[in-house]
Amino acid sequence: MNYTTPILISFAVSVVLSPFVISALRRMKCSQTEREELKEHLKKQGTPTMGGLVIIAGIIVTCLWYGIREKNSDIWPILFMTAGFGTVGFLDDFLKVVLRRKDGLKAGPKMILEFLIAAVFIYYHIFIAKESTAMLIPFGGGKTLDVGFLTIPMMLFVILGTVNAVNFTDGLDGLNSSITLLVSVFFAVAALLLRPDIYPVIGAVIGALMGFLLFNVYPAKVFMGDTGSLALGGFVVSVAYMLRMPLFILIVGLVYVCEILSVMIQVPYFKITHGKRVFRMTPIHHHFELGGFTGKGEPWSETRVVAVFSIVTAVMCLIAYMAM
Amino acid sequence: MNYTTPILISFAVSVVLSPFVISALRRMKCSQTEREELKEHLKKQGTPTMGGLVIIAGIIVTCLWYGIREKNSDIWPILFMTAGFGTVGFLDDFLKVVLRRKDGLKAGPKMILEFLIAAVFIYYHIFIAKESTAMLIPFGGGKTLDVGFLTIPMMLFVILGTVNAVNFTDGLDGLNSSITLLVSVFFAVAALLLRPDIYPVIGAVIGALMGFLLFNVYPAKVFMGDTGSLALGGFVVSVAYMLRMPLFILIVGLVYVCEILSVMIQVPYFKITHGKRVFRMTPIHHHFELGGFTGKGEPWSETRVVAVFSIVTAVMCLIAYMAM
Repeated sequence: MNYTTPILISFAVSVVLSPFVISALRRMKCSQTEREELKEHLKKQGTPTMGGLVIIAGIIVTCLWYGIREKNSDIWPILFMTAGFGTVGFLDDFLKVVLRRKDGLKAGPKMILEFLIAAVFIYYHIFIAKESTAMLIPFGGGKTLDVGFLTIPMMLFVILGTVNAVNFTDGLDGLNSSITLLVSVFFAVAALLLRPDIYPVIGAVIGALMGFLLFNVYPAKVFMGDTGSLALGGFVVSVAYMLRMPLFILIVGLVYVCEILSVMIQVPYFKITHGKRVFRMTPIHHHFELGGFTGKGEPWSETRVVAVFSIVTAVMCLIAYMAM
Repeated sequence: MNYTTPILISFAVSVVLSPFVISALRRMKCSQTEREELKEHLKKQGTPTMGGLVIIAGIIVTCLWYGIREKNSDIWPILFMTAGFGTVGFLDDFLKVVLRRKDGLKAGPKMILEFLIAAVFIYYHIFIAKESTAMLIPFGGGKTLDVGFLTIPMMLFVILGTVNAVNFTDGLDGLNSSITLLVSVFFAVAALLLRPDIYPVIGAVIGALMGFLLFNVYPAKVFMGDTGSLALGGFVVSVAYMLRMPLFILIVGLVYVCEILSVMIQVPYFKITHGKRVFRMTPIHHHFELGGFTGKGEPWSETRVVAVFSIVTAVMCLIAYMAM
C-alpha cells in the first residue's frame, strides 16, 4: 500500500471543496453567535461554521475509494462513527445557525442519538466483527487489560466521553484541527505497526485536516462547527478501539481530557458555591486566553494557546509512542 | 535506539533555556530594525532576536550525549555544519544588533567564512569519510546520479545556495521554524530507512524547533535571527548530503527555493528596469502578505502565509516520500 495516496486524495478534495462550501455557508448566513465575555472574539461574528462538512466529504470520498477498491471491511466501522457523530453535530449546527434555535439540538434527543450510534458500533465491534476487547496497557510492553463484564459499559463511557471532549476542544481558530491532526499522525504510525488495513481512513483524516487548516487557521475563514468536532470525536475513539488503544486516548488526547475536565469541574463548582470559579473561563483554552498559565502574566493570544496545546500534543504523541 | 529520546531531550533543553535567553536578549536590547514598508510589522520592533542560540544549544547538548555515548562519528559533520553556519549567523547578528552596525557582516568576509565551512565539510565528506557522492534521483526507484568531476563545484553551489535560501525564509513569526520542522520530520523518516546512525541529530533538531516554536509562534516573543536560520541551513544541506539526497531539497525545500528565487529575480529586474518589480516585495512571503496570491484578493495575514507555506511543505514532504 502506498502511504501517501490517501492523504493526498483527501487533501485535494478538501482544498478544492472548501472555497465553494465556505461561500455557500456565507450566503446562507451559517454563522454562530460569539460569547460576549471574550471581546477579542467578537470580530469572529459572521464567520461561517459547519465547515466540518468539508472534512467529512474528504474522508468519505477517500474511504469509498479504498473500501470499494480494496474490499477493506475494517474501515467501515470507523467511517460509520465519523459520519454518524458528524450527522448529530450537523443537526445541532443546523438547528442553531440555520433555524436559529438558540440551544440547537436539545440535550435529551442529542444524548439518545449519540447513545444509539455508540451502541451500534459496540454491537458490531464485539459481536459481529468479534474484535478483541483486551486493551493495550501504556508502558505495559504489549500486556493487555480485559475488564470483562465491564467492557460494554466502559466502551459506552469512553465513546461518549471522548466525543464530547473532542467537541469541547473547539473555540479557537485551528485548535481542534491542529490537535486532531497530530493525534491522527500518532494513530497512523500505530496503525502501520499494528493494523495496516485501517491506515487509509486515518490517512484520509490527516489529508482532510491539512486541507481544512488552510482555511481554519487564524484568522479563520470558516469554523468546523459541531459537525466537524463530533465527527472527529467519533473518528478518534473508533480508531482507538480498532487498535485496542482506548487507554492511549488519555495520553495523546491529554488536551481533550483537560478540556472536558475543566468544564466538569467548573460547572458544578459554580453551582455549589453560588458563583465561584476554579478556572477563569471554560473550556480551559479560554482560561489561558484570559491570563496565561498562572493568571499573573499577560493574557495569551489565541494563536499562542493553539501553538502551546499543539506542541503539548506532539510531545504526548511521542510519549505514547514510547508507551506502545 | 529509542526514536523519541533525542527529540525529548532537545525539546526539554530548548523549553527550559528559552525564557532565560529571551530575557537576557531583551536586557541587552538585541532587537532588529523592522522594514518600514510593512506597517503591520512595525509592532515587532523591540522583539529580541538571536533566539537561534537556544536551538543550537538544544542540538549540541543532544548530539554530545549521543556522539559521546554511542561513539557515533557520523553525526559530527552535521553538527559541524550546523554550529559553523550558526556562528557566521551569530557574528552577523552580533554586529547588527549589539554593535549596531547597519549592514552586519560585510558580504566579502561573510562569503569567505561560508566558503571555508563548506570547503571543510566537502573535504571531510569526500576524502576522509569517503562518503558516496552518487545522488539519489527522485522517482528514480533507487537509481543514482554521479556528476563526476562536477561533484565538488556542485556541492559548493548546493551548500551555499541552500544555506542562503533557508536564511531568506525568515521574516514572519514561526515561518522558518515551522518549515524546517516539517523538512526535518521528512529527513528523520528518510534517515530511519536509509541511515539510522544520523537519526539522533535530526531528532535533536525536531525537538529544539518544537521547543523554540512555543516562543516563536505569532505573536513572537523572540526571533531566531541569522544565528538560527544559517544554522538550520547548514543542518538541512549536510543531512541531505549524508543521505545522498541533495536533489530532494528541491522537493521538500520548495519554500526555501521559491524564497531565494524570488530575491534573485526581483533584484536584477529592479535594477535593469530602473524600478519595476516582479513581486510586490521579496522574499516572497512578503509578496503574499501584500495582497494574497494574485494581488487582487485581500492581503494575507502573517499567520495565513505561515500556515499555507507550512502545509505546502507538508504536502511536498509526502511527495518526496513517494519519490524515494
